[in-house]
Amino acid sequence: MIRRATDQDWLHIWPFFSQIVAAGETYAYPEDLDRQTGRALWMEEPPGETVVALEGDTVLGSAKMGPNRPGRGAHVSTASFMVDPAHTGGGVGRALGQYAVDWARSAGFHSMQFNAVVETNTAAVELWQSLGFTIAGTVPEAFDHPTNGLVGLHVMYRRL
Amino acid sequence: MIRRATDQDWLHIWPFFSQIVAAGETYAYPEDLDRQTGRALWMEEPPGETVVALEGDTVLGSAKMGPNRPGRGAHVSTASFMVDPAHTGGGVGRALGQYAVDWARSAGFHSMQFNAVVETNTAAVELWQSLGFTIAGTVPEAFDHPTNGLVGLHVMYRRL
Repeated sequence: MIRRATDQDWLHIWPFFSQIVAAGETYAYPEDLDRQTGRALWMEEPPGETVVALEGDTVLGSAKMGPNRPGRGAHVSTASFMVDPAHTGGGVGRALGQYAVDWARSAGFHSMQFNAVVETNTAAVELWQSLGFTIAGTVPEAFDHPTNGLVGLHVMYRRL
Repeated sequence: MIRRATDQDWLHIWPFFSQIVAAGETYAYPEDLDRQTGRALWMEEPPGETVVALEGDTVLGSAKMGPNRPGRGAHVSTASFMVDPAHTGGGVGRALGQYAVDWARSAGFHSMQFNAVVETNTAAVELWQSLGFTIAGTVPEAFDHPTNGLVGLHVMYRRL
């Protein structure tokens, strides 16, 4: 089940969110995030939206979505995804990705763009490709991966 | 002459800055910018920097530069440029571009990335290419140009 995230949900997102940021393999987020600044980064205000994927009362993952740029870029949406490492491989990322695409189409966006998909995160790259995204380009050495060193960041997009 | 911008300089940047944003041909900035919110957007704090290009006391253009992303993307710099439309064609953009590249190299950045160069802004595209930047990719239809309709946004970068 996927529904809009509440303030209370943030308490259940934060543990895996901070674990994923600390692992440093997928997101170029500030390294000194605490629960409060993480919340400001992840919990979107309208016209954006943050959702959680649930099994019963357990938060398995979360996604945020909204316009990628203001003004003359506001017809392009973007989204970010975090799946609890304890619950990967069960289709949570795919369900959240499909939700984001449907949400953006319903909201009237023209396309969806991911600005920085780490090229070594092949599970994500392949998932987005299976959901209709293509790689528009790759900026070489733009991400400092903890074990692979400098790796590329893909810009991916799809029409809606 | 190019030097670090002061608070006082913003009063001289704002007229052409707001003119360029209102023209809507080169930047996906918020449409309802006033002088105060524009200032927050343009006047960088350390580790970033905002500079002005001067001829005598006249501000001909301005550039801002800094890290493109936090955390594991902070080794990549970015920069933005505004040249007073009354003073284009005189090499101000090139001088500011060269300054930004030199600044980023001196500051120890690995590379410089432009996230959203409007593809119809061929003067800018060619200028960046002449300064060593290549097009890493183009997101189709990502910019709503006032006369050309939906046009692509280039991601450009160069090693430093």
